[in-house]
This record gives sequence, C-alpha cells and structure tokens, in this order.
Amino acid sequence: MTCFADTPEPPYYAVIFTSTRTAGDHGYAEMAENMLRLAARQAGFLGFESAREELGVSVSYWADLDSIRRWKADIAHREAQRLGRAVWYSGYRVRISKVEHEYGMDSSK
Amino acid sequence: MTCFADTPEPPYYAVIFTSTRTAGDHGYAEMAENMLRLAARQAGFLGFESAREELGVSVSYWADLDSIRRWKADIAHREAQRLGRAVWYSGYRVRISKVEHEYGMDSSK
Repeated sequence: MTCFADTPEPPYYAVIFTSTRTAGDHGYAEMAENMLRLAARQAGFLGFESAREELGVSVSYWADLDSIRRWKADIAHREAQRLGRAVWYSGYRVRISKVEHEYGMDSSK
Repeated sequence: MTCFADTPEPPYYAVIFTSTRTAGDHGYAEMAENMLRLAARQAGFLGFESAREELGVSVSYWADLDSIRRWKADIAHREAQRLGRAVWYSGYRVRISKVEHEYGMDSSK
C-alpha cells in the first residue's frame, strides 16, 4: 500500500537520501527492508517515503537531529552504510534538512 | 543521464514533493517536463531530483524561501498546480525544508 508519511506539525527533520545503484542486487533489497524495519523502531522516527527509477530518492522523517545522529551511529546501520559505499551504491547524497512548512491534499478524504 | 543536483554548500532549501497519481496521463508527462524547464530558469533554482514508483518523490532545491514563493506564484506553475489538484494527483504532500548539512560519495570520481 502506498501511503504518505504521517508527519506531525513542523518543525521536524527530513533526511533526503538520493542514490545510484551498482549492477546486481548483492543483498541490497533484503538490507533495505531490514534497515527500514530497524529505523522505524528508533526513537524519533516519523516516517519514510521512497521511490527509485535510475535515481533513488528516499526521505526519512525524524523528530530532531539527535534521533538522526543516533540512527546514523546504530551498529547494524553502520554496517549497511559500509556495504552501501563498498558494494551497493555508485554514488549518493545525504541532505539533512529541517522541515519548516507542510501542506497537501488527499482526494480520497 | 542520471545525475545528482549540484547543490552549493548549505544552507539552502529543499521542497520535498511526494504524490500519488490518478489513472491515465492526461497531459501529465508533458506538463512535468515543461514545469521542470520553467523552474530551471527561475532565479534561485539549484537543482531537481525525482523518481516515481507507486509513490512519486521529487525534490527541488532553491537558494532561499523567496525563490520558492516566486516559483509557487508563477502563472504557468499555478495553472499546473490547479490541474494537479483537479486531474493528475490523487494525493500529495509538499514539505518545505532548510538543508543544513550535505555529504556524499561518487565512486566514479
């Protein structure tokens, strides 16, 4: 099911992760699923939105910078980051940003 | 060609636009191409990264909030926003955020 991250009133934080993949899976899909499950258990996790064509664009939402720092330092996540640099990604950007304003529409509501 | 937005040193702004589409194209692909071309000509535009699966995740980067406001008020863009709400999107979120930190990797460099 597709759904938008159910984020609270701003301010909160967004980690914008854009990436290009190397060829082949090499355990990537399983890792991505595991990391999302782990991230969702972290204190301060607010949601996740993602899509990939040739470029992958993923945004995770967090309550504050400390939550982001703790997740970046998580042992399992650090190993995934290491494999990401070594095996899965040909390039990536991480942009840490503070969401100041949010609005939207749901025509189903 | 896939490429990352060549953004400057932070701070700058990111508009995170996530959306779900209605069925059929109805001029969507042409509009999306036109809007990106128009946006890229606006003062303060810094870049664009996008992917769509069932959920579309697009991020445009801007020098400051005034550039974002001017682009939101652009006549052609306002018409596209109106058609987006009426025809193309079943739902969307717009999150305006200030990028505070950026890092990354290019294994080709």
